[in-house]
Amino acid sequence: MSNENDRDSETPKTPSRRGFLTAAGIAFAGTTLGAGAASEARAATGDQATTGNAAAEPFWGEHQGGILTRPQSHTYFAAFDLTTDKRDDVITLLKTWTQAAARMSKGLPIEPFKESEIAPPTDMSTTTTVTTADYADAKPTLVALTDSSESLELPPARLTVTFGFGAGLFVKDGEDRFGLAKHRPEAFVDLPRFVGDQLVEAHTGGDLSVQACADDPQVAFHAVRQLARLAYDFAGIRWTQSGFIPNFGPKRTPRNLMGFKDGTNNPSVADAEAMAKIVWVGEEGPDWMRGGSYLVARRIRIAIEHWDRTNVPFQEQTVGRHKLSGAPLGKAHEFDAADYGATDKDGNSVIPENAHIRLAAPVNNDGAQILRRPYSFNDGVNFTAERWPPWRQGNEYDAGLFFLAYQRDARTGFIKIFDRMAKFDMMNQFVTHVGGGFFAIPRGAKEGEYIGQKLFEST
Amino acid sequence: MSNENDRDSETPKTPSRRGFLTAAGIAFAGTTLGAGAASEARAATGDQATTGNAAAEPFWGEHQGGILTRPQSHTYFAAFDLTTDKRDDVITLLKTWTQAAARMSKGLPIEPFKESEIAPPTDMSTTTTVTTADYADAKPTLVALTDSSESLELPPARLTVTFGFGAGLFVKDGEDRFGLAKHRPEAFVDLPRFVGDQLVEAHTGGDLSVQACADDPQVAFHAVRQLARLAYDFAGIRWTQSGFIPNFGPKRTPRNLMGFKDGTNNPSVADAEAMAKIVWVGEEGPDWMRGGSYLVARRIRIAIEHWDRTNVPFQEQTVGRHKLSGAPLGKAHEFDAADYGATDKDGNSVIPENAHIRLAAPVNNDGAQILRRPYSFNDGVNFTAERWPPWRQGNEYDAGLFFLAYQRDARTGFIKIFDRMAKFDMMNQFVTHVGGGFFAIPRGAKEGEYIGQKLFEST
Repeated sequence: MSNENDRDSETPKTPSRRGFLTAAGIAFAGTTLGAGAASEARAATGDQATTGNAAAEPFWGEHQGGILTRPQSHTYFAAFDLTTDKRDDVITLLKTWTQAAARMSKGLPIEPFKESEIAPPTDMSTTTTVTTADYADAKPTLVALTDSSESLELPPARLTVTFGFGAGLFVKDGEDRFGLAKHRPEAFVDLPRFVGDQLVEAHTGGDLSVQACADDPQVAFHAVRQLARLAYDFAGIRWTQSGFIPNFGPKRTPRNLMGFKDGTNNPSVADAEAMAKIVWVGEEGPDWMRGGSYLVARRIRIAIEHWDRTNVPFQEQTVGRHKLSGAPLGKAHEFDAADYGATDKDGNSVIPENAHIRLAAPVNNDGAQILRRPYSFNDGVNFTAERWPPWRQGNEYDAGLFFLAYQRDARTGFIKIFDRMAKFDMMNQFVTHVGGGFFAIPRGAKEGEYIGQKLFEST
Repeated sequence: MSNENDRDSETPKTPSRRGFLTAAGIAFAGTTLGAGAASEARAATGDQATTGNAAAEPFWGEHQGGILTRPQSHTYFAAFDLTTDKRDDVITLLKTWTQAAARMSKGLPIEPFKESEIAPPTDMSTTTTVTTADYADAKPTLVALTDSSESLELPPARLTVTFGFGAGLFVKDGEDRFGLAKHRPEAFVDLPRFVGDQLVEAHTGGDLSVQACADDPQVAFHAVRQLARLAYDFAGIRWTQSGFIPNFGPKRTPRNLMGFKDGTNNPSVADAEAMAKIVWVGEEGPDWMRGGSYLVARRIRIAIEHWDRTNVPFQEQTVGRHKLSGAPLGKAHEFDAADYGATDKDGNSVIPENAHIRLAAPVNNDGAQILRRPYSFNDGVNFTAERWPPWRQGNEYDAGLFFLAYQRDARTGFIKIFDRMAKFDMMNQFVTHVGGGFFAIPRGAKEGEYIGQKLFEST
């Protein structure tokens, strides 16, 4: 910390290779946080009472957070490309990220307050012990403020940070940069190109993924921002995606931007047996992936303007569900089982052959299941030539579904299911996959470990 | 409504000129909603208990909502260009928009449920009276679902919709399309080009503005989406901007993405006298603007990566406030008055001459004041050549502040204040104005009126 005072001077010098990480004071100790930690919490400001946002999600554990966690209302996802070619740098980065994510999950800034320098105020919103004297020499005595600080006073908002490894961590451009190629799991295949894929290279892939989810968009962005700052010398952001779901309580199925309930048929995260079967890598995987999962992320643009000009019965045929209730066609209640054999008086299937839910249903995919955890996105408008009558040109929403799905093995999960859907789903005329990635989500870290530790210790 | 059944067929015909507006069933009645309205509310689903989001803001009134309203956590702003050249079309559009906005503010879809066709379910999330028979002939019997429906079951979330008129409504390309040129208020000047402006044409201006604010991003986007659908034949979206502020209760000052509290010195919306003086147009304006205001919107990109590599004391000198407490430099508490005359032991101003708050302060601007209602925005990353050491190139956040300010007269408000700030503010090295607009916000509408009615009735 000796170079703290000139680290971030007004006209910054080129920082030393590891200067930023060191200066940020998150040297990996391999131990639990010190006794001072309790006094660091933002929670002192009484946010519980005013926002209901105070709950914190655990960071440490067998599995990473943000997978079975009840979906928070906002996400900020970032894919990084590693700019270092040194294995030790990657380890340092993951150690640093792990510690920072654990702290932020508790609602703490990335660096502890130094109580010798400033006593944590009892109410940061109105009082502080800072005086001019603290700044007389323009010295950064408030070490805690090396955190960019926009989430100070905010409660944890159920922040989770979920880390993933892209193919590029193992091999990139034919190069085994970090000596990890031999540890790439057999299940971690390259995703095939699906029919209709229009993936934008700059919005696809990445060596590492970081997904922050929180009930406050400022908390989610803050988390990724700090991790990106800590990665300054080692990795840069390749692409990001923010997303949201409606802000209502548990036990309700949110509607996506097509106006239909999305997630009715998702397996229950409360069913440990189902999760073990569907989501978590088991004995078939290498040690570092056991308890981990595979994440398929797809940025799916929806032609909202087109969808909005079709009538509701047509939409319902496309989806295979009633719009209002969410019930499968021919049924009355959202959670009624779909009857794929039912026909109408003319002998036509009540749920059309190419309806979305028919093609996605486990019963029609040899039992294949995935755990979806999607968010809607809304990235403004851009110029589009409509491909539907009356073929206007103009600004259309760059909005849709940020599809995120976890599975034990994508070969028997997303790849199996989506291969057929990409070809036949009636919904395809309204949706286009324009970006995303495929990431191995390593097992969680126990306190004192770092994310991915068992991969780097593999021999 | 006679063409309801084929309006949105699977392969849409080119709609009749007013077909969409009429079909949407929001024919302007000039009366209050019928007795059936009470049964339409989403509120039946008990959202109060689960989300705390159930509160509704009034739509009708002397002033439009969304100005003095305690800022909701999310906004979705859209600027429209009128594609019609008929005055009556604009009136029809404003009547339709007014009715739709009033309904949505209560948490209702844009069109009433037809109780003769379907009884409102008691709990829309789990039960419905819809049966297959309703769809046997693929007839859109659920007229209510002409609303795109993604906000069904969601509470009002304090939605406000605020309408504005751009210069183009009065004169565009030298043309007085709607016979309104003579009613353009003297105060509704063109904004000058300020030093450093880098406004992107496609993200600037617009004939009409619509700002939806809500405590749920899905509710805010839903509102603009419905209004855009209703405008199909008359106007198209020119640009949009979404934004957020931290999700915490009233009486706290949110931090923006610079990590500093933003809004400490805003005038109090509870002070009616101050609002009359600062925000609302009075006798000096034409009748249709009395009780209205002028909105300056600026999309301000912040060089977050650069800011994050400066030290906190430098940041504090730039802003003129302490980062942690929000207190003016040299003071201890956020709401302490700044002492612009104070000097340190070397005779330098404690609050630098070019500090942001000094240049913005009313006391240094002949008392000029505006009401700011800003949101942060976060639109991903794009490729940027850094203009700071070590001059890297790479993806940087397209994020910053969506600055929104209301005032009685911009000539003595934003223009006066910002002219000097654009030249001298230390903060300018970190911020760039890249889009926005200037809009006349007409007075509010009483129930039975439409927004802008008095303008179109002016002689």
